[in-house]
Amino acid sequence: MPRTVALLTTLLALLLPDGAHASMRNVILIIGDGFDDQHVTMGRNYLAGMSGKLKVDDLSFRASVQVETLSTSGAPRYVADSANTATSLATGKVTSMGRIATDIDDRDVMTIGERAITAGFKVGLVTTSSLTDATPASFLSHVSARSCEGPEEVLGSTYYGIPQPACLADARDNGGPGSIIEQLVSSGASVLLGGGQKFLAQTTIDNETVAAMAARYRFQVVSSASALAAANFEQPLIGVFSEETLAVRWRGTDGRIAEATETSWLHNLSDYLGDTKEPDVMDCEPNPEYADTPPLAMMTQTALEHLSTDNDQGFFLMVESASIDKQSHKRDPCGSIGEIEQLEEVLEQALEFADAHPDTLIIVTADHAQAAQILPEPTLYSGFPIPIYSPGLTARINTPEGSVMRINYATNNGFSEEHTGANVPLFANEVGARLLRPFLRQREVHDAMMLFLLGAVTPGLGEITP
Amino acid sequence: MPRTVALLTTLLALLLPDGAHASMRNVILIIGDGFDDQHVTMGRNYLAGMSGKLKVDDLSFRASVQVETLSTSGAPRYVADSANTATSLATGKVTSMGRIATDIDDRDVMTIGERAITAGFKVGLVTTSSLTDATPASFLSHVSARSCEGPEEVLGSTYYGIPQPACLADARDNGGPGSIIEQLVSSGASVLLGGGQKFLAQTTIDNETVAAMAARYRFQVVSSASALAAANFEQPLIGVFSEETLAVRWRGTDGRIAEATETSWLHNLSDYLGDTKEPDVMDCEPNPEYADTPPLAMMTQTALEHLSTDNDQGFFLMVESASIDKQSHKRDPCGSIGEIEQLEEVLEQALEFADAHPDTLIIVTADHAQAAQILPEPTLYSGFPIPIYSPGLTARINTPEGSVMRINYATNNGFSEEHTGANVPLFANEVGARLLRPFLRQREVHDAMMLFLLGAVTPGLGEITP
Repeated sequence: MPRTVALLTTLLALLLPDGAHASMRNVILIIGDGFDDQHVTMGRNYLAGMSGKLKVDDLSFRASVQVETLSTSGAPRYVADSANTATSLATGKVTSMGRIATDIDDRDVMTIGERAITAGFKVGLVTTSSLTDATPASFLSHVSARSCEGPEEVLGSTYYGIPQPACLADARDNGGPGSIIEQLVSSGASVLLGGGQKFLAQTTIDNETVAAMAARYRFQVVSSASALAAANFEQPLIGVFSEETLAVRWRGTDGRIAEATETSWLHNLSDYLGDTKEPDVMDCEPNPEYADTPPLAMMTQTALEHLSTDNDQGFFLMVESASIDKQSHKRDPCGSIGEIEQLEEVLEQALEFADAHPDTLIIVTADHAQAAQILPEPTLYSGFPIPIYSPGLTARINTPEGSVMRINYATNNGFSEEHTGANVPLFANEVGARLLRPFLRQREVHDAMMLFLLGAVTPGLGEITP
Repeated sequence: MPRTVALLTTLLALLLPDGAHASMRNVILIIGDGFDDQHVTMGRNYLAGMSGKLKVDDLSFRASVQVETLSTSGAPRYVADSANTATSLATGKVTSMGRIATDIDDRDVMTIGERAITAGFKVGLVTTSSLTDATPASFLSHVSARSCEGPEEVLGSTYYGIPQPACLADARDNGGPGSIIEQLVSSGASVLLGGGQKFLAQTTIDNETVAAMAARYRFQVVSSASALAAANFEQPLIGVFSEETLAVRWRGTDGRIAEATETSWLHNLSDYLGDTKEPDVMDCEPNPEYADTPPLAMMTQTALEHLSTDNDQGFFLMVESASIDKQSHKRDPCGSIGEIEQLEEVLEQALEFADAHPDTLIIVTADHAQAAQILPEPTLYSGFPIPIYSPGLTARINTPEGSVMRINYATNNGFSEEHTGANVPLFANEVGARLLRPFLRQREVHDAMMLFLLGAVTPGLGEITP
């Protein structure tokens, strides 16, 4: 397959207009994890105002992307996780939840990251999650379960006391390619920036830390914003700035998140009796834990400079704002909104880069829909003489334009909200507008990126199957 | 203003290419009430399959439309109702909830329907709701509150025992233009089809029924599918096929809607104890009450034939599938899905019409987002040893492709779900693609339709203010 790609690239280069081969061809894929239309609108209302515009709104193209998920037996499922959706975007193949670039029969599916490296492009992954989290992992590694992040977890782990899948066939102990972090550092990537110190500190079967293994693969390993700023662009670069997920930029007042509506004692007697007390209004404020965290835009800027140094061919860069989703799981709307702001800053940088490098495809999309809903403030029935309130958890946020935005979470009563199943938005620059259709499946987004990177900007050429 | 419009039309006709003035120029605006991305996806999953396509998906253009709502004092609100959103689409002005083509200071704002009639276009409104419901009302009437549907309600009414606003200044009793139904029959519309027999039966201050008043305005008044089929195209046509909202096409098994998860007695002692029993899976089945109801597509076909008979200039037609929203309020996902099927059938007819009449702008959009969410089936935490379930109401529906789709409603614990605040999708044909941008506000959708009807297909000309 690598040989076919190389051949095709050569062939296409011959067909391209004069000099076109010499210019860089770049893909910047910006993934807002859980950045569905409720979250886009929540971000717009807070960051730009009800009648304002986000930067994604000013892009020249917009599509809807259907999210496809299979059960382990291959039947359709209507709600995804970040592993199977990132796999669709990275490989063009639909798979089951929890899988990292493997199909439902556990066969590895080649990723756009790997194909790009094989064809001579540089590749970078930048994220606010751990580098080993499902979204970045799916672009440069293959395991049967997303939980197999490090050499320890690949043999089995637990989450809130619940056993998580091991990936025994993938473990190096059994002759496999290793855990996600081991595969990332041996992938040929040029830039890997995010969280995940915990996994670099683990020991491989060669009795070295993953950090030492990375150094053996010529990586500079950095773990602070200042070290990131001082990195050279000759060696590949891995930066991990927290144990796992990076701290988020914002939080609610004093760390408040969505809360339950309180009801008076009388309400125990009948649904029609009693009073309600809704959660107080809150503000969004800086999260003190974020202080030393490199902004996603800073990581992206470093990645863009690194990837474009001494590079005539081009690159594939995936940047993920991961905690739009993670904060929605935690019912923390201010947390999500701050990470939408980070995504917007990344888009601004990508657009500036594309101004100077016109053969740059910029795509912003979400991987799946999430739990948060914007609800009426006050509730439509606040004047009714019976207590009507959301059975879920509610946050009421002061917006900079002086109104109150009510965000509700009610997918379950447990410790973490669940994803939802709506199709997700996709925004693209003019290069993308020539390549994409207004309705796509995630696998078709992959196909379009592949065709662009291989030099064939011809929509409708069909799927590339591995 | 009418004179300005007529002048502008003449002026533009002079500037248009040869013969362009002679061809009809038509707008078909299809509103799916509450047809947000969760509902679009729910419809796609059921009607076309997870990997299938709806007809809206095959249109050549897609945008996101931001919904804008004001408080009565003019501050931004983040969730709308169908009155203020239809007002934005019909007039280009943002207003407060419950208002019908009036601004927050209760001034009438001219609608695209009125402007079209003034400029010589024919106008039709077709809906599965009562003709007097907020969406159709906003295109050809002006009252301070959506509740003022008939000559009785304009003086005051109640809803579930709660007093609803009167529109005393609008009442003919006080020298106003009258209730919504009275304004509709005197508007100069050519076709009005939907529900609302109740309002035609009311008596006006002239001691005649509204039906008699309509006859005075030359309307044929029909109230059955067979009478509709026999209508002539010379006289204006009003058809009302139920007391208020038309019956919907589908329902859940034996009329089942979303239901609560039952918990065992032990769960009363602790959140961590007890078992749960989720609602049984259901099918979508034909709603027996629908039997004699004319399909929305049949009403639309009649309207298209009527409006295009002896008409060189063109028309404005608004078609609403109203009960996508109304069934979501009632937590009846099968009800909503059947009405999405009706919307798809209308789109098919509109596209056929546009094939024969190329200067036809087709726009499909929603007015606001709704409550339903597609959730994981089974819940992600079904394997956990503690009971985790949605605090809302759940429907689990067998889909034709053999999977189960879980729909959840949890905006409140009362008798009717509340709208949500996400931006909504807009789909358009090639004519629309030349006219629209990928991010719009509802007022800008109005502006684009106005510019098209006046003959100026020049995007970015700016807003038309009344």
